[in-house]
Amino acid sequence: MHTASLIAVGTELLFGQVINSNAAYISERLQLLGISVLYHFTVGDNPGRLKKTLERAAEESEIIITTGGLGPTQDDLTKELIAELAGRQLVHDAEAHRRLDEIMRSFGHKNYTENNLKQALMPEGAEPFYNEAGTAPGFALATDKNIFIALPGPPREMTAMMKNSVIPYLEKKSDAVIFSRLLRFYGIGESALETALLSIIEGQTDPTVATYAKEGECAIRISSMRKTKEEAEAAVEAVCVKVRELVGQYLYNEEDKDYPQVIVELLKEKGLTLAAAESCTGGLFAGAITSISGSSEVFDRAFIVYSNKAKVECLGVSSETLDMFGAVSEPCVREMALGALARSRADIAVAVTGIAGPGGGSDEKPVGTVFFAIAGRGRECVSKEKFFRDRGRRVNRHVCVLELCNMIREFSSDR
Amino acid sequence: MHTASLIAVGTELLFGQVINSNAAYISERLQLLGISVLYHFTVGDNPGRLKKTLERAAEESEIIITTGGLGPTQDDLTKELIAELAGRQLVHDAEAHRRLDEIMRSFGHKNYTENNLKQALMPEGAEPFYNEAGTAPGFALATDKNIFIALPGPPREMTAMMKNSVIPYLEKKSDAVIFSRLLRFYGIGESALETALLSIIEGQTDPTVATYAKEGECAIRISSMRKTKEEAEAAVEAVCVKVRELVGQYLYNEEDKDYPQVIVELLKEKGLTLAAAESCTGGLFAGAITSISGSSEVFDRAFIVYSNKAKVECLGVSSETLDMFGAVSEPCVREMALGALARSRADIAVAVTGIAGPGGGSDEKPVGTVFFAIAGRGRECVSKEKFFRDRGRRVNRHVCVLELCNMIREFSSDR
Repeated sequence: MHTASLIAVGTELLFGQVINSNAAYISERLQLLGISVLYHFTVGDNPGRLKKTLERAAEESEIIITTGGLGPTQDDLTKELIAELAGRQLVHDAEAHRRLDEIMRSFGHKNYTENNLKQALMPEGAEPFYNEAGTAPGFALATDKNIFIALPGPPREMTAMMKNSVIPYLEKKSDAVIFSRLLRFYGIGESALETALLSIIEGQTDPTVATYAKEGECAIRISSMRKTKEEAEAAVEAVCVKVRELVGQYLYNEEDKDYPQVIVELLKEKGLTLAAAESCTGGLFAGAITSISGSSEVFDRAFIVYSNKAKVECLGVSSETLDMFGAVSEPCVREMALGALARSRADIAVAVTGIAGPGGGSDEKPVGTVFFAIAGRGRECVSKEKFFRDRGRRVNRHVCVLELCNMIREFSSDR
Repeated sequence: MHTASLIAVGTELLFGQVINSNAAYISERLQLLGISVLYHFTVGDNPGRLKKTLERAAEESEIIITTGGLGPTQDDLTKELIAELAGRQLVHDAEAHRRLDEIMRSFGHKNYTENNLKQALMPEGAEPFYNEAGTAPGFALATDKNIFIALPGPPREMTAMMKNSVIPYLEKKSDAVIFSRLLRFYGIGESALETALLSIIEGQTDPTVATYAKEGECAIRISSMRKTKEEAEAAVEAVCVKVRELVGQYLYNEEDKDYPQVIVELLKEKGLTLAAAESCTGGLFAGAITSISGSSEVFDRAFIVYSNKAKVECLGVSSETLDMFGAVSEPCVREMALGALARSRADIAVAVTGIAGPGGGSDEKPVGTVFFAIAGRGRECVSKEKFFRDRGRRVNRHVCVLELCNMIREFSSDR
């Protein structure tokens, strides 16, 4: 089984009320299993068009994965149409019924309608995939020519079912195991990364190495498909060793973790606590760090000093510095970092001040000019000026958060 | 022309590297023009499959809109295949060439390759859509049976071309003008909103009223298609009047603006400045306010007091309060708001403390328990406890930001 098509079912998708993020998620996972995705289709809750689409997809690809249309209402027809196409009856599934009962009871519904019971039916011979995050079960149905896989539409339910049921099911079918690792980089662009890794990327068969650009950072995925997980993992690790040698200085994580999460874990490991003084990011850095569950162990406080008076009053930045150099300057950012350190209980304090745009730029300090500083108890304060290409206020501020994370990683690795 | 299908072209979409957000954007806009979208298709840069998809789409729908595959490389075949299907030659477009020259010169490229010149070709008889945000022009090509519209893939280029060229083109074809307004609500759920507006929604033909659920809030779009813009606008306004009567207390904006933007504009208008004291949101509120360009006029500072010591030292919350009631309590949040007001130069200060999860909950204060307060100079401090259904840390924190915005709106409207 080497080719697949995806069919998303739901009129809300054709209305544009919902973005179909399921297709990208499933495609990436199939890619890792060595399965080529040929088409994505989206159709509404329209039996004629859904049937036609199922037929077309089954003609051109071996695996057909649907998302949506498994609910209890009359609109929901995915299961019925797949059964029809495969020439199977719908039969009662005792375990699906038992689970449905349990969920309904937990919601305090004593009686449910005929419609709900629809969800306990399965095409004859299908392998049921029970839903850990909702009511509608999915399934895989193998025919002579195709495998039909039906998944619920809500992303939380779909992703859980992909991980728990679909990937193991397809791995079993393929007699091979995939192992992959996503490495994340900061401080190097995608094309520079590609160039640096050319010797690895060129002529690759297994493991494969693919580069991805993200906002302000980039990533590579190294994947291998082998007979056993151990073999695949060893093959990936062998490539990782080379990648670390070539571009290790930019590599901040090997497990697809966001930079703020990496920083929270690093600080926990080192037993260090953090404070921040933010001007242009206006709380975005603190917000990113505290988005990580458990960050309270390492994050002490932040001073969001948007106005000049706030910089003076909250952090002790001197009025002379502001008059002479302005709020967007290296002397100011250093006083901010040192002020935050002195006025907190943290071991490390970072500071940032810059011009996020679209307003506020000048010839001398255009939009994208940002100053950063980091200070630690008993250590020299480190500061720098960066000039980022203007990519709009939102991205400009996001890149500042990444830079702060990077400074913290470098600073605390030095110890 | 009443039906459309969308075709997204690009292997990166089938790899799952990019989410196809274009389809939802275009679908929503077509919906507003009274055009039903029947299918979304995604295909790779594969001439055979793209051709087959174009043929199918053209068979079943009147309008076919493609995104992607208009670039200068050999992979980019959308234009060539549409021309082939329509039986047209590709001809040189002088204006497209002139614009290409201009862009290349501005990039400092003196010579460009044959490939680049591909972008100056157009199917014979097509109406070119010049690209305001990139190099690849789009076009509309009408045949006896269909209209083919080709747009560039990058969302920034696509949306600009939709606004500037495609919508006016389709409006011209349809002899009607659409006017629509998106109204945003906080504090009422989607089904409650639907119920409250039932008398308007039921039996609607024009204007149409559609409800949308967003994270922690909801919205309705009121649209009318009439002979003139004035007529359409008047019809929409007439429905707006009824909506304001029925659910005006939850309506926070009528121009599809996010709540932080509405707050920044409101404070500007009232000449008020703002400070914040955040615990569970950890800077997310300040980050959201300062994401608005020009927020420096109204935003003074924020105290991100994640630890208890920070609450005492930065805001003067009393240790007795923390000992007796805990950090997640109404007495604490009131002291936070009053402390932020006293220690800033702002006219209004808000505060929030709560349990964002997944850890930190208890029987008495489960995840989703949040306290809010708002204080203004010479005014009583207002505080409240809210219990939000736990929707995961990220959404829980986002909802707190909306609630703070709502309190500011209510508080400053009172004046």
